[in-house]
Amino acid sequence: MEIKVVERVLAANDLLAKEIRELLAANGVTSLNIMGTPGAGKTSVIEQVFSRLKSDVPMAVIEGDIATSLDAKRLSELGVIVVQINTGGQCHLDGGMIKPAISSLDLSAIRLLFVENVGNLVCPAEFDIGESKKVLITSVTEGHDKVQKYPLMFRLADAVVLNKIDLLPYVNFDLDSFRSCLADLNPNAPIFDVSCRVGEGISELAEWVKSVV
Amino acid sequence: MEIKVVERVLAANDLLAKEIRELLAANGVTSLNIMGTPGAGKTSVIEQVFSRLKSDVPMAVIEGDIATSLDAKRLSELGVIVVQINTGGQCHLDGGMIKPAISSLDLSAIRLLFVENVGNLVCPAEFDIGESKKVLITSVTEGHDKVQKYPLMFRLADAVVLNKIDLLPYVNFDLDSFRSCLADLNPNAPIFDVSCRVGEGISELAEWVKSVV
Repeated sequence: MEIKVVERVLAANDLLAKEIRELLAANGVTSLNIMGTPGAGKTSVIEQVFSRLKSDVPMAVIEGDIATSLDAKRLSELGVIVVQINTGGQCHLDGGMIKPAISSLDLSAIRLLFVENVGNLVCPAEFDIGESKKVLITSVTEGHDKVQKYPLMFRLADAVVLNKIDLLPYVNFDLDSFRSCLADLNPNAPIFDVSCRVGEGISELAEWVKSVV
Repeated sequence: MEIKVVERVLAANDLLAKEIRELLAANGVTSLNIMGTPGAGKTSVIEQVFSRLKSDVPMAVIEGDIATSLDAKRLSELGVIVVQINTGGQCHLDGGMIKPAISSLDLSAIRLLFVENVGNLVCPAEFDIGESKKVLITSVTEGHDKVQKYPLMFRLADAVVLNKIDLLPYVNFDLDSFRSCLADLNPNAPIFDVSCRVGEGISELAEWVKSVV
């Protein structure tokens, strides 16, 4: 009984995701589903990439949070168009939340849409939100074993950003082990070593983002 | 329809949690539900507290992971009894998983049971697993805004461990803002500033654990 209901919810979500994907494609908009654990640096990555690409690529952000609009405030201060979704407790974004958020945007005026998901390394991976690419933000302070322990999200990622690389000297993080586990699980995803705090590696990441728009 | 099913699942879980709580109480076992985001340092905190208390308090650990038994291996190398639960994708532990895990332990031989939940700052807070206390592990690398953004878990915590305090000079973490937001939301939970890496603050945390056994 429970499983049937879950399947029905997922099927309904997949239909909405398909509608969203078609609507974005019809308007020539690439969307990136930005996922990762709380505090990995999702908002910081969006801030950095926005700052690099703002003169070339018209962008908007859909900001997903359980509560508050703290991140939306940070982003809107940079001059980016932001739509806030508060899930009110739900641990992930889904098609039913993204569809009205997209309707409130002028899609003809943008080419790139960031969707910052709820901070959670598990549940968001299970819900297609009609994105073009899934981008996983992780950080050296989380530990190198996360690829093995949270395999679904690492497997589905189209790109992996390893943030807080400036903290490498101060934490027990085995970079070779991280890269080798990720190469086994998901050999095609590019990995970007970045530090949003000191600006390291952002150019390479921004180039990749530009290449998928 | 969906909500009804969810309510039924939660009600079934609450019954199991009640059974677990009664069984643990009948055996004089205190259990701590250790929660936090992936990489916050849940396993490290258990390792540190175990090392401090092992001569005084007989302990066991139930280790919850989506996949792998990496953390169970780390803990069993210290000589602690560990039962591994692999959820196979589920984003939190529930009563149905804890009950058989507890049945496999000799409860008369222990006084303290750590239950390390799946790394997730959202979903585990919603499921009572019959624990005596909820202990939330967070870290300075996650940012001071997490109290406001993930309020349920911070509100329900009986104690909050702020880990990786040794990294404070290298991150943008406003300690006063963190403490003041937590005091507003949950004035009764003690906060322990610790660094598992350098051993700071572990004595105070271990004293608190001992006081609730």
